[in-house]
Amino acid sequence: MKVLILFGSPSDKETMKKAKDLLDEFGVENESYAISAHRAPDLLEKVLREKEAEGFEVIIAGAGLAAHLPGVVASKTVLPVIGVPLKGALEGLDALLSIVQMPKQIPVATVGINNAANAAMLAVEILSIKYPKLREKLLNYRDAMRKNIEENNSAEVIY
Amino acid sequence: MKVLILFGSPSDKETMKKAKDLLDEFGVENESYAISAHRAPDLLEKVLREKEAEGFEVIIAGAGLAAHLPGVVASKTVLPVIGVPLKGALEGLDALLSIVQMPKQIPVATVGINNAANAAMLAVEILSIKYPKLREKLLNYRDAMRKNIEENNSAEVIY
Amino acid sequence: MKVLILFGSPSDKETMKKAKDLLDEFGVENESYAISAHRAPDLLEKVLREKEAEGFEVIIAGAGLAAHLPGVVASKTVLPVIGVPLKGALEGLDALLSIVQMPKQIPVATVGINNAANAAMLAVEILSIKYPKLREKLLNYRDAMRKNIEENNSAEVIY
Amino acid sequence: MKVLILFGSPSDKETMKKAKDLLDEFGVENESYAISAHRAPDLLEKVLREKEAEGFEVIIAGAGLAAHLPGVVASKTVLPVIGVPLKGALEGLDALLSIVQMPKQIPVATVGINNAANAAMLAVEILSIKYPKLREKLLNYRDAMRKNIEENNSAEVIY
Amino acid sequence: MKVLILFGSPSDKETMKKAKDLLDEFGVENESYAISAHRAPDLLEKVLREKEAEGFEVIIAGAGLAAHLPGVVASKTVLPVIGVPLKGALEGLDALLSIVQMPKQIPVATVGINNAANAAMLAVEILSIKYPKLREKLLNYRDAMRKNIEENNSAEVIY
Amino acid sequence: MKVLILFGSPSDKETMKKAKDLLDEFGVENESYAISAHRAPDLLEKVLREKEAEGFEVIIAGAGLAAHLPGVVASKTVLPVIGVPLKGALEGLDALLSIVQMPKQIPVATVGINNAANAAMLAVEILSIKYPKLREKLLNYRDAMRKNIEENNSAEVIY
Amino acid sequence: MKVLILFGSPSDKETMKKAKDLLDEFGVENESYAISAHRAPDLLEKVLREKEAEGFEVIIAGAGLAAHLPGVVASKTVLPVIGVPLKGALEGLDALLSIVQMPKQIPVATVGINNAANAAMLAVEILSIKYPKLREKLLNYRDAMRKNIEENNSAEVIY
Amino acid sequence: MKVLILFGSPSDKETMKKAKDLLDEFGVENESYAISAHRAPDLLEKVLREKEAEGFEVIIAGAGLAAHLPGVVASKTVLPVIGVPLKGALEGLDALLSIVQMPKQIPVATVGINNAANAAMLAVEILSIKYPKLREKLLNYRDAMRKNIEENNSAEVIY
Repeated sequence: MKVLILFGSPSDKETMKKAKDLLDEFGVENESYAISAHRAPDLLEKVLREKEAEGFEVIIAGAGLAAHLPGVVASKTVLPVIGVPLKGALEGLDALLSIVQMPKQIPVATVGINNAANAAMLAVEILSIKYPKLREKLLNYRDAMRKNIEENNSAEVIY
Repeated sequence: MKVLILFGSPSDKETMKKAKDLLDEFGVENESYAISAHRAPDLLEKVLREKEAEGFEVIIAGAGLAAHLPGVVASKTVLPVIGVPLKGALEGLDALLSIVQMPKQIPVATVGINNAANAAMLAVEILSIKYPKLREKLLNYRDAMRKNIEENNSAEVIY
Repeated sequence: MKVLILFGSPSDKETMKKAKDLLDEFGVENESYAISAHRAPDLLEKVLREKEAEGFEVIIAGAGLAAHLPGVVASKTVLPVIGVPLKGALEGLDALLSIVQMPKQIPVATVGINNAANAAMLAVEILSIKYPKLREKLLNYRDAMRKNIEENNSAEVIY
Repeated sequence: MKVLILFGSPSDKETMKKAKDLLDEFGVENESYAISAHRAPDLLEKVLREKEAEGFEVIIAGAGLAAHLPGVVASKTVLPVIGVPLKGALEGLDALLSIVQMPKQIPVATVGINNAANAAMLAVEILSIKYPKLREKLLNYRDAMRKNIEENNSAEVIY
Repeated sequence: MKVLILFGSPSDKETMKKAKDLLDEFGVENESYAISAHRAPDLLEKVLREKEAEGFEVIIAGAGLAAHLPGVVASKTVLPVIGVPLKGALEGLDALLSIVQMPKQIPVATVGINNAANAAMLAVEILSIKYPKLREKLLNYRDAMRKNIEENNSAEVIY
Repeated sequence: MKVLILFGSPSDKETMKKAKDLLDEFGVENESYAISAHRAPDLLEKVLREKEAEGFEVIIAGAGLAAHLPGVVASKTVLPVIGVPLKGALEGLDALLSIVQMPKQIPVATVGINNAANAAMLAVEILSIKYPKLREKLLNYRDAMRKNIEENNSAEVIY
Repeated sequence: MKVLILFGSPSDKETMKKAKDLLDEFGVENESYAISAHRAPDLLEKVLREKEAEGFEVIIAGAGLAAHLPGVVASKTVLPVIGVPLKGALEGLDALLSIVQMPKQIPVATVGINNAANAAMLAVEILSIKYPKLREKLLNYRDAMRKNIEENNSAEVIY
Repeated sequence: MKVLILFGSPSDKETMKKAKDLLDEFGVENESYAISAHRAPDLLEKVLREKEAEGFEVIIAGAGLAAHLPGVVASKTVLPVIGVPLKGALEGLDALLSIVQMPKQIPVATVGINNAANAAMLAVEILSIKYPKLREKLLNYRDAMRKNIEENNSAEVIY
């Protein structure tokens, strides 16, 4: 039950850390690598092959601008790839379109702009199909989330 | 190994059929329902509960305009939900943003505008984590795709 | 003559307060709740049912990103729902489209991005159809606004 | 219980007719006028004054391009004004922004691009606050809508 | 040879001052008024009538958001109206479209977002058709501008 | 009282003819040339110089895509230049921004996308400052327009 | 003096043929291949290596949607890569941003949407730096273009 | 082996310096001039002619807003022109479209918004076709880049 987190540049480290944090919270093993699809394609290939061999099952890939990393990764694996568009220019619209508009046969599961936490949540949902204990944790998490909101928000907002 | 296909309106039937076709090709059982998140919330709830009980494991949801269906479904299940933005106005940009920009904790795995086939492909990738035989089919499918392209495209294009 | 104010997240509190302030200015009773459409659907349902029973007549709902709250509320009531797109990403364009582009039969009365004050003003206009005294206040308010502008702006601007 | 329907140009007649049709279905009296805010401001003023005097209670205004009609009408009345952005250029984005982004104090209740039917539905919701019989009709309409969808869509889609 | 400068809100004062400054530089008489098209339509009408009677020949109108002021002014005069889209939301795109996309027969001469100085320059160009002395000044201004750039920029940039 | 009409490509001929037609209607002399700013800069220069010498007083320039023609013309004359963004790609948004966002000191008076008629109307308004007889025609035109609308639209629309 | 033309899908064949046609006109040898960056990465690699060895000096790459092909090619060669965004959805804006917004160190020379002819023209300009005879042809082509426009457009347009 | 760097305004100096720095790093001679296409067309013409005569082989041109400089330069030379869209308004989208959407026959090789470094890198790639020593440097640079990334990023990111 391992998730690989990739991002195009070391400068994306802080934004992508929210993915790691949520996976840690769920006890899902994870490793993060900063590898540019364009500037180090061989290293990317090598890391993908190694991690697939080590049993990683879902990949999260974040990138900005002409964000090719998630699509390039998706073309090199049949594991589900979750793409996180990172805001670098144009409010992140360039990254969103570069990730979500993948051609037929090579999908990327795209989440919201800069929303690395949701990428991790989606990874947890995907793994929960296979791992009943994770599913249980996820159901509890959702329940806790709901209760927390219900407790804190069932009374009128006091200004 | 069952996938539920939902869409907001019967008029989305033809576009969404490409999801069903691909799932059929992979031998993945599937059922399709046209249910509006806004106009029939109770029916939606009922179908979701029944299908979860019947062991459906991934949900594909397509919608246009202020496309709430995928997000509403995602809020009612912990199964992975794949969203397909359908082109109804503004070239589909409204549907894309309404689906992909989900708030924290409730992700939708968004694919490209009108790209129902890729939603099915993503569902197959997700299920392949759990089902080795499907994974094998998927690897064969990718190989066949690659070979087909290599055979047809390794020679210069003749105009 | 009561207006319900809802918003998706406690962080929207300050922006939405301008709606409350204007309603207070008109002496229109109001209550505010921070309830996520996706994370606490049952609480939302419960609050809506209670407030409808208590005679609330107009609902203002603010949300950002894939802003489903106004539309989900509109699908659960026949009271007029006024939607306020809140700026979270993409300058608020995602929220605007997610709110205004509602499908047939379930409209949301959308106002400008972050313009909670105008949502309240619209609520006052709607209630004024039924409540002659509020209508009078509204006419006086408009007159005062006009006079104020005419007094302050009838002279040339001095730089 | 009367609704005034305005639009900027006779060429908008067909799109705006859907508003009239829905109002007719609910038995809400209505009248339609094609009056440009810019090309016939005096006629607009005159019609507004007359119709207010005749007891019209809600105004629907549709316009395309730099769609000023709804905003100009809103500045001349305290009745609720519902704006319908009509698609003339840029997929209707120009009309949407010209209508929804009204400045403080003069709101326009904006519905989706070309969605005149929803403008009428919103008018019915607004009038239902005051007219219990209309509210009953509206509740029945919603029930019928829901049942209709539930009957037609509760079974799997047959391709 | 007088130019009227209008803007929708006192908060636009600083941005619009650049129009006044350039007109002053050319010795073109000008007056500035902050009048909302929607909140003080009668005052706007009155000022327009007075200033037309006083011989004003060009009008500059700046506005943000659903920027109706330039179009409303254009509908009430046959003097050329120059519109300045002011940045209030969406980077000023809403104001630009609300001003430039005027319907047939009522044009607004639109300049760039927040570019009040260019509105004044355009006013000078327009008046120069009629006033030979202004035209001379304008030709000198252009010459000086060109020489200034040629002197300062004919040498390589030193970093 | 002569207006020069320029456009970047012979294929713009039909769209730009609406400018000529309106000028003819007002009895304003005009000539049209199809000259690309990029492909025939010398011819453009030559035509501009000749027409300025012949007493042309306003220039209308239409162009699509990266629509430089209006701006280039504006940089070569102090006559007012009216720009018409023509729809070639991206619904004409590229042409609109390429024309309206001119830098300081070189304005282009931009009208709506494909709205050549409004460019001519603006030219008539500009010339009317100088030519009292044209102003009279313009006032009559506006009156006729208003009356025509008032006569045809003062009665309820019959569907 | 050879140019390699690549495109993501056989369906792009007709649009991309305009690149071939222009290169043929200039006597520049060229070969075209339809190879998807995502679906046949190994074939792409192989063709690139072969063609580099055969002395190809410029690469033109066209792609639509999340158009990764030009960027992926640029990451695998130091030859200049010219990218052609192809219109598949969103008027081609997705392809444009996916191609032009490349990260530091791996540029793609992007031309206009669907403008394959300009990609070829740019290739000719690039090769002309090295090949004096091609430069001569290019200068003649430009001269002929200019003369052709000057001859056909120096007279007034006759409607 | 000389590259000319142009930009529309002295205020673009810092952004464009990244182009100079990279060219210096590769030992490619370069000169920078701040010349507005619109405000000093003659100086631009003169500098272009001189620099062509001095053997400059590639031109980099950066501009913001309605960014005409790169296109105007491209129309006056057959040297390859690389355009850098600079962010002045609308997140740089106006400059991008004004540069990339050039009409047939006059291409501009456009790079990403504010990405002057990539313009220089593209210039180096273009010159490397002709200059074997530069090509060698470029290959070494790419290798170094790749190794640097591989060394720094082959290990898991430590948070």
